[in-house]
Amino acid sequence: MPKVSPAHLDARRQQILDAARVRFATHGFARTSMTDLVEASELSVGAIYRYFKSKDEIITAICVQASLGLPATLTPASILDFLEHLRALERESGHARLVAQIYAEAAVSPELASLVREQLDGLRSAVVALLPDHEPAEAARIAEAFVAICHGYGQQLAVRGDVAPEPFAAAIVAVIGV
Amino acid sequence: MPKVSPAHLDARRQQILDAARVRFATHGFARTSMTDLVEASELSVGAIYRYFKSKDEIITAICVQASLGLPATLTPASILDFLEHLRALERESGHARLVAQIYAEAAVSPELASLVREQLDGLRSAVVALLPDHEPAEAARIAEAFVAICHGYGQQLAVRGDVAPEPFAAAIVAVIGV
Repeated sequence: MPKVSPAHLDARRQQILDAARVRFATHGFARTSMTDLVEASELSVGAIYRYFKSKDEIITAICVQASLGLPATLTPASILDFLEHLRALERESGHARLVAQIYAEAAVSPELASLVREQLDGLRSAVVALLPDHEPAEAARIAEAFVAICHGYGQQLAVRGDVAPEPFAAAIVAVIGV
Repeated sequence: MPKVSPAHLDARRQQILDAARVRFATHGFARTSMTDLVEASELSVGAIYRYFKSKDEIITAICVQASLGLPATLTPASILDFLEHLRALERESGHARLVAQIYAEAAVSPELASLVREQLDGLRSAVVALLPDHEPAEAARIAEAFVAICHGYGQQLAVRGDVAPEPFAAAIVAVIGV
């Protein structure tokens, strides 16, 4: 067998995840089989199973990649940019619809729920780290609201189609008090 | 055949919806078959199909019943009560997990999305009606944020288990400015 470089392996793995993400965002997890994912990725059955033992492993890998980086500082402009980025991701790749699938699955699967909880803990900690001038308890409260508003906005995008981000950005600004 | 009263028919229909709601909240829509719903409702196959032609009709009926009444006025206390009510509904009947299933399904089904959009439009209008002293455009912005925060809170309940409502109530209060 010819040698395969790690970069090639990574690219193949990503090719599977990218195809699966699109398929999941448009059909949901339960209505997607490994056969559908083989077809969507344009790779062979053997190639897919080389990287992932099951659909659940693919869902987990996608969930790990689904978190978004926060802005470096929280200002009215950077908050609006962040929500515009969420909006663009939904338009370009169905990101918000994918998140809807992840939450629905996490709501009925303890394993995925545990992964999502970890990601949410990390996200709230990252928000707290951006609020060094706030009391810790107050920063924690703001972080809860920040995550809820971003998620709430994303889910409006998922079910209503395009929705302008300004009201949601204004809400975050009001909550932070910047 | 004996005559069956309308009240009896309504009760039977509701018995099916109540059983289906619990099953959907714990297993999701796609992993639930009509056979599962027959079993969960403890009625006969014939009885179920007398009320609903398909699983989709049951999902639609549940979605119609899933909206919540808003408080009569928006004060810090009534807002916290409203979120406590959401929290109790999740604890008692898995309401937030059910909403996660509804959004995931709406994200991939145009028919259900259209129903959810109508309900969201109605909910935002109801919030606007509670803000007679605000400029219409400002009231509309607040309504968007109100719905996003409530949904965001519910989805934290759905994937993290119990979460205290205070930070989310404080966010709504900050957004409304009451």
